[in-house]
Amino acid sequence: MGLIVQKFGGTSVATAERINAAAKRVTDAYKAGNKVIVVVSARGQTTDELIDLAYEITDNPSSREMDMLMSTGEQISVALMAMAIHALGFPAVSFTGGQVGIVTDSYHTKARIRNINTTRIQKELDKGTIVIVAGFQGVDVNENITTLGRGGSDTTAVALAAIMKADRCDIYTDVDGIYTADPRKVPCARKLNRVSYDEILELASLGAQVMHSRSIEFAKKYNVPLYVRSSFNNSEGTLICKEVKEMENIVVSGVAVSKDDAKITIRGVPDVPGQAAKIFHDIAKKNINVDMIIQNASIEGRADVTFTVPRSDLRMALETAEKIKKELSAKEVLHDSKIAKLSVVGIGMRSHCGVAEKMFSVLAEEKINIQMISTSEIKISCVIDEAHAERAMRAVHTAFGLDKVEKEEVVKV
Amino acid sequence: MGLIVQKFGGTSVATAERINAAAKRVTDAYKAGNKVIVVVSARGQTTDELIDLAYEITDNPSSREMDMLMSTGEQISVALMAMAIHALGFPAVSFTGGQVGIVTDSYHTKARIRNINTTRIQKELDKGTIVIVAGFQGVDVNENITTLGRGGSDTTAVALAAIMKADRCDIYTDVDGIYTADPRKVPCARKLNRVSYDEILELASLGAQVMHSRSIEFAKKYNVPLYVRSSFNNSEGTLICKEVKEMENIVVSGVAVSKDDAKITIRGVPDVPGQAAKIFHDIAKKNINVDMIIQNASIEGRADVTFTVPRSDLRMALETAEKIKKELSAKEVLHDSKIAKLSVVGIGMRSHCGVAEKMFSVLAEEKINIQMISTSEIKISCVIDEAHAERAMRAVHTAFGLDKVEKEEVVKV
Repeated sequence: MGLIVQKFGGTSVATAERINAAAKRVTDAYKAGNKVIVVVSARGQTTDELIDLAYEITDNPSSREMDMLMSTGEQISVALMAMAIHALGFPAVSFTGGQVGIVTDSYHTKARIRNINTTRIQKELDKGTIVIVAGFQGVDVNENITTLGRGGSDTTAVALAAIMKADRCDIYTDVDGIYTADPRKVPCARKLNRVSYDEILELASLGAQVMHSRSIEFAKKYNVPLYVRSSFNNSEGTLICKEVKEMENIVVSGVAVSKDDAKITIRGVPDVPGQAAKIFHDIAKKNINVDMIIQNASIEGRADVTFTVPRSDLRMALETAEKIKKELSAKEVLHDSKIAKLSVVGIGMRSHCGVAEKMFSVLAEEKINIQMISTSEIKISCVIDEAHAERAMRAVHTAFGLDKVEKEEVVKV
Repeated sequence: MGLIVQKFGGTSVATAERINAAAKRVTDAYKAGNKVIVVVSARGQTTDELIDLAYEITDNPSSREMDMLMSTGEQISVALMAMAIHALGFPAVSFTGGQVGIVTDSYHTKARIRNINTTRIQKELDKGTIVIVAGFQGVDVNENITTLGRGGSDTTAVALAAIMKADRCDIYTDVDGIYTADPRKVPCARKLNRVSYDEILELASLGAQVMHSRSIEFAKKYNVPLYVRSSFNNSEGTLICKEVKEMENIVVSGVAVSKDDAKITIRGVPDVPGQAAKIFHDIAKKNINVDMIIQNASIEGRADVTFTVPRSDLRMALETAEKIKKELSAKEVLHDSKIAKLSVVGIGMRSHCGVAEKMFSVLAEEKINIQMISTSEIKISCVIDEAHAERAMRAVHTAFGLDKVEKEEVVKV
């Protein structure tokens, strides 16, 4: 007995059959006595098809009109979902983001939710109606349609769960839950029953892309328990919730690898105060996110500064680096886009020593060179050669005891 | 320099190429110094595809959710149209029916416009922006999305033209204009340069389906001149406007044939007062539209009553007729669905005699039997055997001097 938000991703509503299956999950929750809010994404490839239509017209579509166009994808989904629930004999009503009072700022294609007027949702829930809301979209104060950018439907679901004080927010997707590592790359990866917001935030930003960071941050801020599970089977999913005492016993919850970065080194930077500030000021002015930074010890008054940037920004970052090199009379600019960032994440790190040491040893045993290191309270990341990424991930996964038990038994036999 | 509303039908925006061509027409009007409001239908087969999606889910979709679903078709079109106009270098902004303040009643899938809040349109026009409005849709007072039913985009265009006091409403479609007869059936049919609202209303309801009657009625009521023309070429179209003196010289403006009716005869109805009322009261209760009615002279206290109903309602009408037969102790019920209604329409009939006589003579010469006759101030309709419909139409078309001159010359050569 409570209020549940259920979010269905694009693959979960791609066909009439899947929409009917999703509707069944909704009505099961309703029959169990819950009030239910459903958030739906655009069906399967719809968004891509709409984007293609736009690019047939122009190479440079306005972002306002893209939002007008793309928001139809979710609108189609909610109407079909309402019909499917009606067909099962239950009351349901669909709403666009605008109709349900999701007001955002005016940054088209990446708008942020400002507030949600809950009057209409509450009224329908009170009547016993299942409320279906189009994910990913809202309106600005002038009623222009906006979209929330990548992972936008998750954000809608979490925001609704937060403001409606839902007991739980179910995220139905095409994977069974959150794993200790990407199961496509680490076959012996284990599904996590429970993981904290902070851990999943580190894992998400590192390439374990089950949910977008923004929606997790939102869930953390408003303490919305998220339950990630598959819409294709009934296996237990993963509960993402706030940290509890017992989680500390698990030193490492997951291992992730990301290949989205490139490395730039400016060699021979004069080792006088203010030089690093100068470099990263210029890079930041280009709107490029710098992730890791290292500076080696100065030799003969000169130091090497190395940092990583998103691969997609590499060319722009290199142009800036070359300009900086001249201005600072540095020696040369080197770069490498064939790198991978391997990370281990776990709340238990806070109270356990030796995690970094263990990770470094494993990589050493595998004869994999560590190019850069960065750490946070619950994460250790190493930059290595991209070619060794998967092998390194599997080795670290095993070393931290994350392999599933069945796998070990198979190995013994 | 005035205000022009341009409406583009589904075939006129079916592909990127056609959208770009339509955008060119819009910007040409804009460059000529006009303020322009564009109304767009759903692209090509979009509406049918959306309806198919619904019927994959359920045989009985709710009309509110159908409107939610179908309204996305026009929303896609307006966004793409705005992009195409932007690509040509002109300012444009797209709106849904709801955004632009088109408020309707709550009769989903066949809503009627109640009022239009013109503030936003006027503001954008004043800024010099081309305003693009999704046809076919509005919202009710609770912001539920509604659609206007068949010909809804025409209605949107005409309503906007009326309330904005536009100088003209251009209806771009896939035909060149309004013809004296359906050119697919009467190859020598001539395009009309000008035709009155009343004539086109009679022609439209008789099967010359260029525009839906409702939008013509609207245009007549608010005296909006409609200019029907092709979006595929630059030939002159047809102006639909209020009747002017000189139109009276044209006795017959057009000939139309409709095969949408069926004929029912109840034989041997006792010829006492109140029997006809009883018959048509019962039929009306079933929501069946009766078009023509004839009753022959009574023989031995009994008469035959014949009437036409839409073919789609024939079965229901027959059931009712059989029930009536029993109740009135009439003799038998006959029916024929292989009939056609041939009509000639013209404002000049009001002041010219002999039109009916001429029509009957032509049919007699062709040895075509007239089964029923009905007349209005500007129309004469005859029910004939469906098999002779096209031949009869061509003969009447020629007899009233409607064939195009080129055709006659060709014949002479």
